Amino acid sequence: MSDVDYCVVGAGFAGLTAALRLKQAGRSVALLEARDRVGGRTYTLTRDDGAWIDRGGAWIGPGQDRIYALMHEFGVPEYKQHNDGDAMMIVDGKKHRYGGKLPWTMSPWAVANLGLALLAVEKMCKTIPRENPWEAADAAEWDRISLGAWIEGNVMSKPARDMLDMALGGLYTCAASEVSLLWALLQMASGGGPGFCITGKGGSQDARPVGGMGAIYRPMAAQLGAALHLQQPVRRITQDADGVTVASEGMTVRAERVIVAIPMAIAGSIDYQPLLPADRSLLHQRMPGGAVIKTSVVYDEPFWRADGLSGQSAAAGTPVTITIDACTDTADPGIMCAITEGPAARELTKLDEAARKAIVVGELVDRFGEKANAVVEYHEQNWTIERYSGGGMISHASTGVLTEYGPSLRPPCGRIHWAGTETSTTMCGWIDGAIRSGERAAAEVLAARSTAGFTQAALS
Amino acid sequence: MSDVDYCVVGAGFAGLTAALRLKQAGRSVALLEARDRVGGRTYTLTRDDGAWIDRGGAWIGPGQDRIYALMHEFGVPEYKQHNDGDAMMIVDGKKHRYGGKLPWTMSPWAVANLGLALLAVEKMCKTIPRENPWEAADAAEWDRISLGAWIEGNVMSKPARDMLDMALGGLYTCAASEVSLLWALLQMASGGGPGFCITGKGGSQDARPVGGMGAIYRPMAAQLGAALHLQQPVRRITQDADGVTVASEGMTVRAERVIVAIPMAIAGSIDYQPLLPADRSLLHQRMPGGAVIKTSVVYDEPFWRADGLSGQSAAAGTPVTITIDACTDTADPGIMCAITEGPAARELTKLDEAARKAIVVGELVDRFGEKANAVVEYHEQNWTIERYSGGGMISHASTGVLTEYGPSLRPPCGRIHWAGTETSTTMCGWIDGAIRSGERAAAEVLAARSTAGFTQAALS
Repeated sequence: MSDVDYCVVGAGFAGLTAALRLKQAGRSVALLEARDRVGGRTYTLTRDDGAWIDRGGAWIGPGQDRIYALMHEFGVPEYKQHNDGDAMMIVDGKKHRYGGKLPWTMSPWAVANLGLALLAVEKMCKTIPRENPWEAADAAEWDRISLGAWIEGNVMSKPARDMLDMALGGLYTCAASEVSLLWALLQMASGGGPGFCITGKGGSQDARPVGGMGAIYRPMAAQLGAALHLQQPVRRITQDADGVTVASEGMTVRAERVIVAIPMAIAGSIDYQPLLPADRSLLHQRMPGGAVIKTSVVYDEPFWRADGLSGQSAAAGTPVTITIDACTDTADPGIMCAITEGPAARELTKLDEAARKAIVVGELVDRFGEKANAVVEYHEQNWTIERYSGGGMISHASTGVLTEYGPSLRPPCGRIHWAGTETSTTMCGWIDGAIRSGERAAAEVLAARSTAGFTQAALS
Repeated sequence: MSDVDYCVVGAGFAGLTAALRLKQAGRSVALLEARDRVGGRTYTLTRDDGAWIDRGGAWIGPGQDRIYALMHEFGVPEYKQHNDGDAMMIVDGKKHRYGGKLPWTMSPWAVANLGLALLAVEKMCKTIPRENPWEAADAAEWDRISLGAWIEGNVMSKPARDMLDMALGGLYTCAASEVSLLWALLQMASGGGPGFCITGKGGSQDARPVGGMGAIYRPMAAQLGAALHLQQPVRRITQDADGVTVASEGMTVRAERVIVAIPMAIAGSIDYQPLLPADRSLLHQRMPGGAVIKTSVVYDEPFWRADGLSGQSAAAGTPVTITIDACTDTADPGIMCAITEGPAARELTKLDEAARKAIVVGELVDRFGEKANAVVEYHEQNWTIERYSGGGMISHASTGVLTEYGPSLRPPCGRIHWAGTETSTTMCGWIDGAIRSGERAAAEVLAARSTAGFTQAALS
């Protein structure tokens, strides 16, 4: 039994940030993490030679000020993502190299379609009030259909449709039919529009921290010291008039308030006493995670660069949806990142590791040539079956969810406060959004006064 | 530690039926129920004078052969739902009485719209292969949009749209924007089409068991005797080469196989060791429950009958979505059932009981006159906040879910088998479907052989 001012559940970037800010404010904190590591949906493996592999979230971009602030706080510099050379798009098994933003192998008709669709999405995003997206003029209409239905109904060219399905739908690592159009617009708007989301340079994959995400989360964990408790999956949160009792498999924490900073679906598996307000309980059932496997293949050197390739490729409907150069700042060794998203990730999950490796490396050979066979190390991180992530990369809202339950996304339920990137109105879905949510929740509990009661009526 | 042939989790009609059939087959069973009662989403309160109130599922209809078989097995007769007299529709606060199937206060244009829409739904339902709805010719198209989007796009008349929203959307006790059109079509098709779902006489509210649902589930529980364990919420299910270990808060059961017969979202909160196959885990995140409050108001007599009213009323967007005569076979006392569905139920949940009672009784007075003020007993059952139902009445699939995850709805995962009305291809969503699912799961485990392994690959 540990008695602290505040308890935080989940040591991803949201929970780490919340706990750190509370400790820095002079309060005592207990941070309970289910896994045997911190980082949540980020996970940096550092080799003995100092090279690192980000097995989860890795990239940062302009406008992500709060992660840059943390990097500044801990003295972590950035380095730019390698972008030189041609990218590649694979359509119907045929490789197309291209240099500009849009693949020149598309017909002018398809390119026009794609451009118009992105403009339309951009325009819709601009009408979304990010604090209250359910109040957008067209919220009801946009929340009634999936992103997939919008693409199907608004983009005439098949190649353009396929590309949008992959580029936009891929953000949610599930089929575009699963995601509410309104949610997709909110998520994209939170990053400044679709351009930021799907662009490398100057966009969401502009740069990385030197040392990987671990270079940030490790000193955060170190600063928290004994306040951090690993391997403590939380099973029950009980509220009463004087505080909260948070019970994990191995310990019980008594605190004034608790910040829950774990994915929506996982938050729904905690036993809340008394029951959460109906809208919040039902929201936990309605923001599922996606499916994604991030495979990092290590080579002696980034051989693709010598061949004039950036390392970026996209191939909708294949076992490797996208690839991207994932080298450290020194480009030694060569690290190729293969990302398998959505339905393809679920299919790969059904195979054993050897079969999966053969398929993924085979795809790399198809795209980058025989040198891709000279694998030095092979690391796969299947977020789809991470028990305490409940899928990856982020949670999305199904149709009807934002307009019906959206107002329950952020407000505390009595002494329980909510963090997590999906609650952020800026950079929702990115690590920066997680950090913002942690800072917002920490500020909330510091400002909070005691609550009136714990009935459905009082909690709502 | 209890050692049995089979374990069953959840003593609703699905679990009770599965356990009973296994016991009748000569096997030993442990049935673990989280609540202090059996019945699940049915719950019959029986008064000292023998009158009963069904606080949950209550009605039966033609084609529901398996519940009729159970009633025959336990000697429970049926009685017909009271239908004589005019029904009532409230539109914009104005009451309209009507006698036929469609309200004659609608304009011919609206009635034509409504009829055409129902014909269109009927036609779509006919193309759904109920075992594999994702193989319907238009499955992808119908799974990309919500039921709400279909109604919005296909019904021109506003009154007809409102009525369909209530009549069809109401089946899922949530906003029509939350439900995949494909799921709605599957659910309706499983009952023979929309006509069965929304019709009282000859449809899904044709009759009731004398004594209420408890007259069936009580003798089932009695026959199970010591095999039934109440107040045992299951927290963990562990599979190994020789069997399963099912751990609740208070006991551990070792068995060859387990049948999980609880709502989808609640099944997702169990800790499975090893992890379930990805598709099944993700499905648990994608079939949320709705919100519904069933209020039973007892009067000295069914006074509305003397006024030439059937007791049925419908009022979309009000705190009492529908009312229906809920008397016993003797019509003594008078019991009026008020059902609050979806968004309205979530709003009512935020009030305290006194405020809710004032609103509900006020609605009854508005519809049935001052006599409705003479309340003898007031019973409210808020399924929205039933901890072990996770909402009510049934679970639905969001857009994209059936086409992506539907194949995981029924197949066992190693030694874990799945029951529950939502898994039934006939009468999905009704009590009869729950019974069918229990019988199917019992037959499955009796026929099952040992499984190969418990990796993601082996379980998938």
